[in-house]
Amino acid sequence: MEKKFIYFFSKNETDGNGQMKNLLGGKGAGLAEMSKNGIPIPPGFTITTEVCCYFYEHKEKLPPDFKKQFEKSLKKLEKATNKKFGDPIEPLLLSVRSGAKFSMPGMMDTILNLGLSLKTIPGLIQKTKNPRFVYDAYRRFIQMFGNVVLEINKEEFEDILNKKKEELGVKFDTELREEDLKSLIAKYKKFIHEKIGREFPDDPFKQLEMAEMAVFKSWNNPRAATYRRLNKIPDNLGTAVNIQSMVFGNLGENCGTGVGFTRNPSTGEKKIYGEYLINAQGEDVVAGVRTPKPIEELKKEMPKVYDELKKIVMRLEKHWKDVQDFEFTIEQGKLYMLQTRTGKRTTQAAIKIAVDMVKEKLISKEEALMRLEPEQINQLLHPIIDPKAKIEIITQGLPASPGAAIGKVVFNADEAVILSKTEKVILVRAETCPDDIHGINAAEGILTSRGGMTSHAAVVARGMGKCAVVGCEEIKIDEKNKQFSTKKITIKEGDWISLDGSTGRVILGKMARIEPKLSKEFAEFMNWADKIRTLKIRTNADIPRDAKVARQFGAEGIGLCRTEHMFFAKERLPLMQKMILADDLTGRNEVLNKLFVFQKEDFKGLFREMKGFQVTIRFLDPPLHEFLPKTEKESFELSEKINVPGEKIWQKSCELHETNPMLGHRGCRLGITYPEITEMQTRAIISAACELAKEKIKIVPEIMIPLVGHVNELKDQKNVVINTAAETMKKYKVKIEYLVGTMIEVPRAALVADEIAVEAKFFSFGTNDLTQMGMGFSRDDAGKFIKIYLDKKILKDDPFKTLDQEGIGQLITIAIKKGRSVRPDLKIGICGEHGGDPESIKFCHKSGFNYVSCSPYRVPIARLSAAQAVILDKKQIEYTSK
Amino acid sequence: MEKKFIYFFSKNETDGNGQMKNLLGGKGAGLAEMSKNGIPIPPGFTITTEVCCYFYEHKEKLPPDFKKQFEKSLKKLEKATNKKFGDPIEPLLLSVRSGAKFSMPGMMDTILNLGLSLKTIPGLIQKTKNPRFVYDAYRRFIQMFGNVVLEINKEEFEDILNKKKEELGVKFDTELREEDLKSLIAKYKKFIHEKIGREFPDDPFKQLEMAEMAVFKSWNNPRAATYRRLNKIPDNLGTAVNIQSMVFGNLGENCGTGVGFTRNPSTGEKKIYGEYLINAQGEDVVAGVRTPKPIEELKKEMPKVYDELKKIVMRLEKHWKDVQDFEFTIEQGKLYMLQTRTGKRTTQAAIKIAVDMVKEKLISKEEALMRLEPEQINQLLHPIIDPKAKIEIITQGLPASPGAAIGKVVFNADEAVILSKTEKVILVRAETCPDDIHGINAAEGILTSRGGMTSHAAVVARGMGKCAVVGCEEIKIDEKNKQFSTKKITIKEGDWISLDGSTGRVILGKMARIEPKLSKEFAEFMNWADKIRTLKIRTNADIPRDAKVARQFGAEGIGLCRTEHMFFAKERLPLMQKMILADDLTGRNEVLNKLFVFQKEDFKGLFREMKGFQVTIRFLDPPLHEFLPKTEKESFELSEKINVPGEKIWQKSCELHETNPMLGHRGCRLGITYPEITEMQTRAIISAACELAKEKIKIVPEIMIPLVGHVNELKDQKNVVINTAAETMKKYKVKIEYLVGTMIEVPRAALVADEIAVEAKFFSFGTNDLTQMGMGFSRDDAGKFIKIYLDKKILKDDPFKTLDQEGIGQLITIAIKKGRSVRPDLKIGICGEHGGDPESIKFCHKSGFNYVSCSPYRVPIARLSAAQAVILDKKQIEYTSK
Repeated sequence: MEKKFIYFFSKNETDGNGQMKNLLGGKGAGLAEMSKNGIPIPPGFTITTEVCCYFYEHKEKLPPDFKKQFEKSLKKLEKATNKKFGDPIEPLLLSVRSGAKFSMPGMMDTILNLGLSLKTIPGLIQKTKNPRFVYDAYRRFIQMFGNVVLEINKEEFEDILNKKKEELGVKFDTELREEDLKSLIAKYKKFIHEKIGREFPDDPFKQLEMAEMAVFKSWNNPRAATYRRLNKIPDNLGTAVNIQSMVFGNLGENCGTGVGFTRNPSTGEKKIYGEYLINAQGEDVVAGVRTPKPIEELKKEMPKVYDELKKIVMRLEKHWKDVQDFEFTIEQGKLYMLQTRTGKRTTQAAIKIAVDMVKEKLISKEEALMRLEPEQINQLLHPIIDPKAKIEIITQGLPASPGAAIGKVVFNADEAVILSKTEKVILVRAETCPDDIHGINAAEGILTSRGGMTSHAAVVARGMGKCAVVGCEEIKIDEKNKQFSTKKITIKEGDWISLDGSTGRVILGKMARIEPKLSKEFAEFMNWADKIRTLKIRTNADIPRDAKVARQFGAEGIGLCRTEHMFFAKERLPLMQKMILADDLTGRNEVLNKLFVFQKEDFKGLFREMKGFQVTIRFLDPPLHEFLPKTEKESFELSEKINVPGEKIWQKSCELHETNPMLGHRGCRLGITYPEITEMQTRAIISAACELAKEKIKIVPEIMIPLVGHVNELKDQKNVVINTAAETMKKYKVKIEYLVGTMIEVPRAALVADEIAVEAKFFSFGTNDLTQMGMGFSRDDAGKFIKIYLDKKILKDDPFKTLDQEGIGQLITIAIKKGRSVRPDLKIGICGEHGGDPESIKFCHKSGFNYVSCSPYRVPIARLSAAQAVILDKKQIEYTSK
Repeated sequence: MEKKFIYFFSKNETDGNGQMKNLLGGKGAGLAEMSKNGIPIPPGFTITTEVCCYFYEHKEKLPPDFKKQFEKSLKKLEKATNKKFGDPIEPLLLSVRSGAKFSMPGMMDTILNLGLSLKTIPGLIQKTKNPRFVYDAYRRFIQMFGNVVLEINKEEFEDILNKKKEELGVKFDTELREEDLKSLIAKYKKFIHEKIGREFPDDPFKQLEMAEMAVFKSWNNPRAATYRRLNKIPDNLGTAVNIQSMVFGNLGENCGTGVGFTRNPSTGEKKIYGEYLINAQGEDVVAGVRTPKPIEELKKEMPKVYDELKKIVMRLEKHWKDVQDFEFTIEQGKLYMLQTRTGKRTTQAAIKIAVDMVKEKLISKEEALMRLEPEQINQLLHPIIDPKAKIEIITQGLPASPGAAIGKVVFNADEAVILSKTEKVILVRAETCPDDIHGINAAEGILTSRGGMTSHAAVVARGMGKCAVVGCEEIKIDEKNKQFSTKKITIKEGDWISLDGSTGRVILGKMARIEPKLSKEFAEFMNWADKIRTLKIRTNADIPRDAKVARQFGAEGIGLCRTEHMFFAKERLPLMQKMILADDLTGRNEVLNKLFVFQKEDFKGLFREMKGFQVTIRFLDPPLHEFLPKTEKESFELSEKINVPGEKIWQKSCELHETNPMLGHRGCRLGITYPEITEMQTRAIISAACELAKEKIKIVPEIMIPLVGHVNELKDQKNVVINTAAETMKKYKVKIEYLVGTMIEVPRAALVADEIAVEAKFFSFGTNDLTQMGMGFSRDDAGKFIKIYLDKKILKDDPFKTLDQEGIGQLITIAIKKGRSVRPDLKIGICGEHGGDPESIKFCHKSGFNYVSCSPYRVPIARLSAAQAVILDKKQIEYTSK
């Protein structure tokens, strides 16, 4: 049997249905479904996406059987409409539209009124008695055809049109008279002839064929390709072509056209929302030349039509179980639906609609939870730049930490602290380092010219819930002259800028900001998510303030407390530096005893905040040179502060310098070379727990050894922990429970996880480092070529944002399988940045994790993602068991 | 049944045998085997290693049944010797010696003449009629017991002895008379009393028990522990204790003692080799106080004894099928064998002996091949520092590249080139980089203060077969003042030093050097290896000279040609720099066209040298900043040379700077961002092959894409290669065959090897990088803590020297399994440094590799290792099928 390339739809006969989005595209499937259900739509047919794919695979040829099927379908359409294509008396006019599986709004092209030609114009004039309408339709057709098929810039037609209107002294297209349109048509045709060196084609069959090809080609036009890349739509789906008989909303005052939503797409309110124009064709509504009327007025103007429309769209909403975005045309009092699709909506509306629909028993709670992309929650938690404001974009970077920040530009951390006392500031740096923490803390937002989504600035800002735009490679920072520039503009210290951390936009001036508000529907929605999910959600937090925010967002414990952050604080850094510079163990121990006091209080603070929940504490991780100055000059500056000779500081800094610090002397390697650090940290943790135990606060600290690659490393450090903990508990005469576990972040650790699990009570996947080492990408450097990789589609996602399930995921599943083979109750979590990424969370759920841990502001996103993972998993099981 | 802790041996009754090395130690098993075979040895018994292990596991307690067994054995020994321990009339004297599974020469302690006491001395005098002998024996006993059991420094006894001799004006111990010895004994006892606060123990039973314990304890003395660490002997084996009745070679002129080898241990000559002393006890022969006589003289002095000895040792050699290192004593004309063990020998001797023994049909060729540690071959290929020379060691570093180098110190590459025209030079640098290549080439040897076994200096030097000592952390280099210092000494530019690249010693002054000579036995031996092995051996070579050396050493192709090395050459580096600094593609292509000419000639040179063998060429791998200056000053210096503004150079250098270059913009990431580099390199390779094809030289180049982690990277680059190759062949009108394959060096690549193998015809494991990423160790930085890891036994081996089979090995076996699952004939090789490491080569053989590739000078080592791998594998199979 020959393959079916064309699906017909009309009142009496419809081949397709709403499920066939792959084959017919979203629009084609929608038209088929409506037609099947007796909704009035102009008849037509859909050319399948397979034809488009064939077209691309066979050097722009069509399948051999195609022509025959096409001719047959056109015949059928002529019969259904009682018109004939190209006929001088009863000419059939067509619209030709693209329609891919996924909606790509405005990305591909449409041609209306196809079938008008010198031969058919008289017949149509005869029939409509409206020559102005006919010439206007013809004018529009030439313009669309010229643009889409002949690839002439739209603006060039607009220029000719505008010149004509100026000449005539008129404002609206509707003011053009028949003779004006005729002269315009002549001008258009002359222009086209000059442009392409040929006459404008006048044969409707030729036009139709050219239009089809143009739609196929438009699948690969640059803006469609870009849209697909940004929205991760595969390139090989192809588009369908919808060929539909025309109806006209511009045949007179009993005609009209409009668009609408079944519920308010901004607020979610349950009320038809939309607008329409009398005597107009579809594009006029959105073109903004005439101001459309709100749809309620149609009730007064054409009550019957309105009632029918309302009945139809509510039926459509019920049928599709979601808000519909619809288009309609009224031709001489008769309503036609032109399109219906799922309506896009704001996050706020999405939540209200989902919750309402559950209450209306239209959808289940599970379905409601699947209606929201978890990332959208970000829009609710953070302030945004007023979307109505007019903005001037300076440049765009990576949207590293969402929110909106407005402030005066400063170029270093100290100045940020000073200025922030009187003004709001934005800290601008090439890249940040732990030294900048106080400045980041003082600033409203952070802007960097280097680094990726997991650079220091990005991670710290997200942790603090602070807006950040990073990796703005276009800007050149000139620290000396306190300014930064793009090719177009220079911004000086003290100038106002605004950052949009959700899009990466850097905006000139002081914008208005809209603060977030959480609705009662949101609370209800998240409550449903919590009841469904099985993954626990913890947070990465190093200080009580962050822990508190995370608790408010629903965190169920701390999955990662980075103890080194405690050493960067102002009063502690000098001690840390002295420790590193000490000549011997005695010298180190002396300073460590002072740090102990701070560290113990830190842990007590965290434990109090997390009372009743687990706290996982990671031992000192970064290489020691991060605590020392990077230049000789800074070494001598530090010298006075800590009373150590500058040469000695600089010498030590050089001695500790590493070619690849990421793979250097850090993590447990520090604890193994300086067991006294491990001892001090253990003492601080256990002492804190003992002291709280005396206050009847029970805490089970989870002590986490970082960067283990070999079981012997863990054994060595565990030994120090056990001995020190025993001593400490003896001193306090308190017995507390604690666990020792490890990060799995070195690929080797994943491979020998069966050995490691003998010693570890829990694994926490450090997927940042696991990705760095497993893929050989330095997250501080990889930004540049990862961008190229994404452009060239070598990688689907930035692996530092979304876990590379195919590669790094294998290391994780190997580690879990091996680990649980020797310790079935091994507790498994993740504390890399991926712990807050929806796709990665779904992977964690499937892989049998006990919890994910993410920065405080991502906790709600993680909660929803975890719930969706359960729902998807259930679907998968249902599907498999069928 | 109770456990047997003691194994007896005597003429009539022997419990153990030669196979029981685990239980009885090497010495104990040897004694048992000799005894069983009727060789005359003094009877005795061996306490098993299990007792030693028990001792350590139970806080220095002995097993409960031990005492009973011990008393029984002592009784049996008394019966066998017709003497009684502690008896005043017929006292039994004993020797107490350690004896572990593996020989640890001189590492543990021996006590002779145990059983002498105030009570037993008169009886022995009565029996021997030789009071001087008895007192001398007692004096020696006190000295040994004092040292080994009471832990008093040997030298302190020697001091007392020497003072006595001075007092008496005598030179040799033998000149001491009875009364001198008596006075000495009194002095010794007084000294001991002062030292330990107790009398010297006089009860023989007490002495025996203390001696046993001391032997057990000596297993863990620092020098034994160090020896084990260096020789990779496990700590938990424990030592046996051999308790044997004494015989005396110092009872008169019909007595004597000696040591010998069944063949010459230096040359391998088949002739008994050894020395003896008349009227002496064992230690006198080695002590060097009296000069021993060559063993041939014994034939004249005691022909019967000599004949018996010869017969016995030749029987032993035949029995053990290897050269024996034996000790004997003649007591009043009667020969006793005291010990026999496999004789240590030089590499030269080892080869001659192995080849001779095959010809004597004593051993098979397989056995012969197993007789040599592959590493030993190094001693034959490289010159050595004259072992007889007196040396002063300045410091010791890592033995990075074997051989001996003698030269004047210089501190930079340019000066090395200049001075090398008139003098031999040693290049001393903190670390080397590609800029230093010309200096390394000009120098005799390289000394660095930083970096490990796979640092740049180490890798390059090994490739050139040039002596190098690296990572000498003790030396501080002061480039400004052109000198380097240790704590003790400062060496200035122009001073002579000598390097021993096989041990890492840095020696003061101009030492004598012995040049290597290869024997005909070596050729025969290697020929056997080649016939047995199945792994092919290729070499890593970038220039024709290296390729030629490797061919002479038996390389069967090039496994890794690093094309970047071609860009560092003097006339090419400026072009490479211009390419990097070019503003656009046109600029880059202009310079690439010039580089193309060089590169094509390079490949032609290599192809000619390797005619008939495969050549694997890796595309540009290092990050581009390696080609640019590292400082602003150098940028301005370069500016004049290449006619590019200094600011521009420095800016580019900063722009390209990376935090972790190891994980940076390198490997195929370069080719993906700059396809024009891939194009140029492909053109050069294919053009070279086409031009040679016209000369009727057939070559099948293997093009290798580095640092692939995702199959899409390989696809992208393969695409460029295929298109460029097709164009090039069209131009030459020649069709040549070529393969495209990839390095497997990113952990992710191993995990998705099934996808990658679809595109790759071969895999070459880059185990250096795979180890860096898989273990998270930067080879430039890890030296420091890896040393600590080895000391703490966290790691067994330096993973950059010997492949970490347990961890990284898993990535390799996963990759091979997955790769061959989609392409069964996938060619698999290794081109990391491990390709020349014997243990790693054995792993490669077992894992199904087709070839290993190593630096030219390691080719013979690899050939032997590969043969041993086959032999071991066969044994394994035989063992398993039993």
